[in-house]
Parts: sequence; C-alpha cells; structure tokens
Amino acid sequence: MTFELTILGSSSATPAFNRNPSAQLLNINEKYYLIDCGEATQNQLNRFRIRSHRIDHIFITHLHGDHYLGLIGLLSSLHLAGREKPLDVFGPPELLEIINIQLKYSQTTLRFELLFHAIDATQSALIYENNDITVNTIILNHRIPCTGFLFTEKPRKRKVNMEKVAEYGIPAEYIPLLKLGNDYEDVKQQRVISNAELTSSPIPPRSFAYCSDTLYNESFLHQIKGVSILYHEATFLHELLPRAEETFHTTALQAGQLAQKAEVGKLIIGHFSARYKELNTLLEESKTAFDNSYLAIEGLRFTV
Amino acid sequence: MTFELTILGSSSATPAFNRNPSAQLLNINEKYYLIDCGEATQNQLNRFRIRSHRIDHIFITHLHGDHYLGLIGLLSSLHLAGREKPLDVFGPPELLEIINIQLKYSQTTLRFELLFHAIDATQSALIYENNDITVNTIILNHRIPCTGFLFTEKPRKRKVNMEKVAEYGIPAEYIPLLKLGNDYEDVKQQRVISNAELTSSPIPPRSFAYCSDTLYNESFLHQIKGVSILYHEATFLHELLPRAEETFHTTALQAGQLAQKAEVGKLIIGHFSARYKELNTLLEESKTAFDNSYLAIEGLRFTV
Repeated sequence: MTFELTILGSSSATPAFNRNPSAQLLNINEKYYLIDCGEATQNQLNRFRIRSHRIDHIFITHLHGDHYLGLIGLLSSLHLAGREKPLDVFGPPELLEIINIQLKYSQTTLRFELLFHAIDATQSALIYENNDITVNTIILNHRIPCTGFLFTEKPRKRKVNMEKVAEYGIPAEYIPLLKLGNDYEDVKQQRVISNAELTSSPIPPRSFAYCSDTLYNESFLHQIKGVSILYHEATFLHELLPRAEETFHTTALQAGQLAQKAEVGKLIIGHFSARYKELNTLLEESKTAFDNSYLAIEGLRFTV
Repeated sequence: MTFELTILGSSSATPAFNRNPSAQLLNINEKYYLIDCGEATQNQLNRFRIRSHRIDHIFITHLHGDHYLGLIGLLSSLHLAGREKPLDVFGPPELLEIINIQLKYSQTTLRFELLFHAIDATQSALIYENNDITVNTIILNHRIPCTGFLFTEKPRKRKVNMEKVAEYGIPAEYIPLLKLGNDYEDVKQQRVISNAELTSSPIPPRSFAYCSDTLYNESFLHQIKGVSILYHEATFLHELLPRAEETFHTTALQAGQLAQKAEVGKLIIGHFSARYKELNTLLEESKTAFDNSYLAIEGLRFTV
C-alpha cells in the first residue's frame, strides 16, 4: 500500500527564500490527505503536478495564517474546476466561520458538499477512519489552540504459509480465519494446529505524526512512540531557546531529542524561521540528538 | 516624477500556467500603491524584489478571492517584519469584517495602525488624494459590488521662461505666482505682462485607470477618456461573448473597442481565463480594435 509524504511548504509565519508556509500531502493507498494549507498551497500542488481534485480530506492544525490561508483559494479553485464530490475538512471550529464569511461575501455557493468537522483541541481523539487508516489528534501546546495529527495504518492480516496449509490439508475456506489469527481445529484428527505454525506476523502498521506548532512537549510522547516518520516543527536553533519558548515553538535540538525519546523511525524537521536562509545548521543540530533527521524541503517525497 | 506600473498577477479566478491572480503595483513619486492582492501576492513582491514595507496604500476592487485572498498574509507578514507606520486599505465594507475575524482567531494585534476606508460601490467618488495624485473610484458592473480606480496626477505648475523674466526685470519672488498662471503687473512702468508671454504649458497630468472585473460598460467612458494607460480586464476571446456576459466579464475585442472609444494612450489587458495557455490570440484580438494594446505579463513594468 502506498504511504508517501510530499512536502509542499516548510516556512514559518511568512514566506522566505522561496519557501512556502506549511502544507504537506499524504498519499495513502492512492487517497490524498492534505495537512495544513498555507497561502499559495494550490500553486505548490500545481508546481509538483499533484492533482488537487484527488484530495478528499484536509486537516488544519490551527488558525495562524501560515497554516490555513491557502484554504479558501483551494476550495474556490476546486469549485471552479467543477468538483462535485464531497470534501471533508477537519479544523478548529472557528475555521468554518472564516470559510463561510468569505463564501458569503463572494456570493459563492460551492458545487460540492463541504463536510466540516470541528476539532476539539483540549483532548486527543480519533477524528477519522476508513479501511486504510485511523487519524487521531495530538494535543500541542501553542499560543492558540492547535492539534497535530497521527495517521496510522490499520493492522494488516497475518501472512499465511501456504505450504503448511497444504501439508495439514486445511480447506481453502479457512484461510481468511487464519489471516485473522485463529488456530485451525482439525476435527477429524482431533488436533489443533496453532496459528503460529501456519502464519507469520505481518509488517507492523506504519504511521506518520505531524506536530506543528508547539512548545517542546513530552505529553504526547506515548502517541508518537515508534512512529515510522515524525514531522516536528523546528522553528529555531537552540541558541534561540528563549525566543522559541516565548513564541511557543521548538528548537531543532529539542525536535531531535523528542524523536530520540520516542524512538521514531525518521524525523523530518520544518517550519523554519525566516531568519535562516541556509538550513543545514538546523539539520546538523537535530542530528546531534537523532541521527536519522531530514529537512522538510519543498517537493521532497518521503516513503513512510 | 516616477509613475510606473508593475504587473504582479494577471490570472482570473484561479492560478494557471504560473500566472498569479490579480495584483498590480503603482510607484508614483516613489510612493507605492498596491491595487488588488490575490493569493500569493507577497510571493510576487518578493520575486520581483519589491519591498512590501514601502506600500502605504492598498486598493481592493471587490470580494472575489482572486482579488483579495493575499491581503491577510501580506498584513501578517508586514506585522511580523515589525512595521509600525500606518497602512491605508480601501475596499468593500465587508473586507474589514473578513480581516478582523482572521486577526481575532489568530489572536493577532497588528503592530501598525490599519486605516480602513470603506468604498461605496454605487457612485464614483474621490477616495484619496495627496500632493501627487487623486484617486477616484470607477463604478464597474460585476456579479458583486466592484469598483475600479482612477489614479490621476495633480496638475503641474506652468514652466517659467527665465530669459523673459530677466528681460522684464521681474523679481524672483514673483516666480511662484507665474507658475500658478498669474500675469505680472509692472506697477513702475504701468504695464501688465501676460502669463502666456512668461510661461509655457506644463506636461498634461498623467493618469492610470484600473478596470477589473466588469461587463463591457461605457458608463464610465467619461472617466477614462484620454487616460495615459487603461488596464482593462479581457477574460475571454470574443467567441465566448455569451460566457463573458453570463459571468460579468469582458472580451479582448471589447476591451480594445473601449480603449479606442476612450482614446487612451495605451491599453493593458489582463485577468485571463485559465482556459488560455497562450495569450497572443487575446492580444491580437484586442489590437484589431486598438493597436496600442499590451498583455499584462507578470513582472512587466510600464511607464505611465
């Protein structure tokens, strides 16, 4: 199953050095999920030739402009391009008011149904699931209510060893049960063949956690423990820790430390301050705590 | 006096073929005036190395997203960059509500004063003037209330012929009066020297009219008569006239015809539909009615 992340924007607060504000696209099993939608995200989608009409779910972390100002333009373009299928938008309750007031004054009635899901930023919850994944909120600690998102693959079925199945003469009808972990009860020969003998463990579910924006925060460590990829903001170098704390942001060192404590597979840092033209110092700092660190560079595609 | 227009965006409705939605910048006597502010206008300002903190006046024609969605991001970036001097914003009354709701939910208190001026889209009015220019609204006919803007240089003073001044022995103190058109009364010699003999006419005031978006409309012909440069939308080719009328837009041919009737100096067409990748057919069509037509290509700078 495809599970890919494309970086669309990595700048904090304001566009700088051709870096756009926050936006990332997940392709999970050929379904597109957009996370955050800073200004000009639709231009980024065009630039990287990602067809925006394939996006069916949009998740907005919070109401700072660099995380949602591109949403109205994207909705408007989808409308003008003739979209008819519903679009699910998850975000802070007030986002709906912001959308509606702009549709109202432009006298626009969207051709498609906008299914808005208000997020409660005070406690983590399962906010979405389908056959492929679950999406849970992660409660972040920012200047205004803000939630991250944890995308987790549903557990896969066990792998059946077909040679063993043949050896024990197990009828084909039982295979779905074996995949679910059941033992096989051979009534004729009055024996039980344990599932462990007939199957092997599937690949563990992959997962992606998106954490932006937040003060360094271990309260959600249990949620990101062992995730395949953690995206975590790293707005500043650690030498600016007081500034990070004052603005409810994280330093590159802290992001690395959190990734190390959470034993994640890979860390991607982003949401870079406009003061950094060159980003390698941020990467190097993160790597001192967690070696498998990467920069969120626009256009990069990570396989989860 | 500098009087220059830079095109920042020329796409209608939705960004297409790397064309951004509407925005133009006027530099008049080294003061910057921004007209419309589609999504990602701040990126365009960066791209063309125009320092956004020099903009002191912003004029928004109407509340379709392709004309204002970049405004909140620009205001936010000016705020974050530490702007302290006031900023004047002219636009439909509801724009203030849209700005305020977004500042409220992002818990942003702008560091600078935002002086908002609500525009009445029902009758043309002088909405701004300073030592250099006047700005009048032009009432357009669009699907929602919409005004264009006419920027007119203040009349210059007459040019004094210093040789004649010396010949008649006119004291230097009288020169400002001569520039204003006064005759010189020579009390000693009991004679009047006419202003016409002492001065020549100044260059006629230059002017720029911005008309987007509108159905073809001659009701404001008197306002744009003889302007140095007319920017007029030309969303469609004339073969799509029914579509233009249905959506309250103008064709390239009509824009050329209006320019010809108004006897303007130069016509710039823009607000191109996303259906046109190649724009020369629009230009050629406009030229059949008015030869001195140009395309609004991003980054082009026109001297008014």
